[in-house]
Amino acid sequence: MVNIGIDEQIDDLQYKGLKIIQKKTGFRFGIDAVLLANFCQVPKDGQVMDLGTGTGIIPILLAGKTQASRIIGVEIQEDMADTAKRSVLLNNLEEKVEILAMDIKECPSYFKGRHFDVITSNPPYITAGGGIVNPSDAKAIARHEIMCNLEDVIRVSAALLKPGGNLFMVNRPQRLVDAVYLMRKYGIEPKIMRFVHPYAGKKPNLVLIRASRGGNPQLKVIEPLYVYESPGVYTDEILEIYGKSR
Amino acid sequence: MVNIGIDEQIDDLQYKGLKIIQKKTGFRFGIDAVLLANFCQVPKDGQVMDLGTGTGIIPILLAGKTQASRIIGVEIQEDMADTAKRSVLLNNLEEKVEILAMDIKECPSYFKGRHFDVITSNPPYITAGGGIVNPSDAKAIARHEIMCNLEDVIRVSAALLKPGGNLFMVNRPQRLVDAVYLMRKYGIEPKIMRFVHPYAGKKPNLVLIRASRGGNPQLKVIEPLYVYESPGVYTDEILEIYGKSR
Repeated sequence: MVNIGIDEQIDDLQYKGLKIIQKKTGFRFGIDAVLLANFCQVPKDGQVMDLGTGTGIIPILLAGKTQASRIIGVEIQEDMADTAKRSVLLNNLEEKVEILAMDIKECPSYFKGRHFDVITSNPPYITAGGGIVNPSDAKAIARHEIMCNLEDVIRVSAALLKPGGNLFMVNRPQRLVDAVYLMRKYGIEPKIMRFVHPYAGKKPNLVLIRASRGGNPQLKVIEPLYVYESPGVYTDEILEIYGKSR
Repeated sequence: MVNIGIDEQIDDLQYKGLKIIQKKTGFRFGIDAVLLANFCQVPKDGQVMDLGTGTGIIPILLAGKTQASRIIGVEIQEDMADTAKRSVLLNNLEEKVEILAMDIKECPSYFKGRHFDVITSNPPYITAGGGIVNPSDAKAIARHEIMCNLEDVIRVSAALLKPGGNLFMVNRPQRLVDAVYLMRKYGIEPKIMRFVHPYAGKKPNLVLIRASRGGNPQLKVIEPLYVYESPGVYTDEILEIYGKSR
């Protein structure tokens, strides 16, 4: 029996019967997490770590979608990690998915000598100085670089990845230069980039990046992903990602 | 009277009566140069330098399109620079446009103390090891990093730009990480990026970048540019750039 708080609800992920516990108000996962999980490729029996896992949405989706043997989600916020742990139990995924309440910056020493095939991260997009925030607010911590910044995420990823292992990240195009610069700086070469546009012809509002530890320089920018065909109407690709049909 | 070689022809740029001399076979300017000239913004009375000017296409287009007071095109290949000089005379642009037959790497010492508002570059896209080439071939020199590489172009741009001045570059998406990494390394921050796609929904084959010397980190990826509506049929935006109507 999994406890659900009165301020929480269970949302159906509409994918292989998976569910997630979220606050009724407060931080809730968005399309960026779903697109990242879909973009991510995990080898059979792969070891995966999700840095800054929030509600655990990415480990839970990856547990459904991939043949990973182990997926570890790391989250600095205790209560958020607790929610993620209960979602893992709710889905009976405790054999496969582990949630750790830990600062990602402590991971390289905690996992010393253990390396991962895949790291995923949907990091805070907004730089620390980039807006007035309440630093105790869970939503603010998820979105602003209060507890960790992009350089922490990339440095830690480089330390945790096997040679040839891949970091999959989603971010805003505004942070593209930061991400690419830091990835190369820490020896994780960006190999695949995909922009997400609300509509064809409009500017992108998200970017998906696959970067490979020790990879050779040669980026592929692949076909854009369009979210809407017309207002309120998803494209076929988004419907497929969400496991729905028209 | 401008001399035209028997292996050359005069092509009408179909823009303000501008013309260009090109070899009948050999290196001829492409859509990338036209899109770069269109993407480029020059302040009134601005000083502009085009690094690796080839046939001089970018200085000639910018002379027609902007209110630059001076546009210098630098080209290492003597015969290519000679062709560009003759195109400048052909267009009566010798008051505004100057072509120098010079290695771009010598520009910082040659122009010591003189700084530019705008640098443009359509550099060789292909790394030196990236294909079998004939190093004496003009086309190969324009396309492969034989005489200079991307780091030379960006380092020289940083040395030649005024603080706040802009580098406008076109490149292939494959070189995006190299370009962005080197721009930040040399203090020219990428500010605007625009991808050029052959068709909506297809992967981009060119990227336009504006980078500002000493600029703050914050990239804008703007609306994509689509070249074709259907096979052989340009989009309205391309027709407008080429100064044609449907």
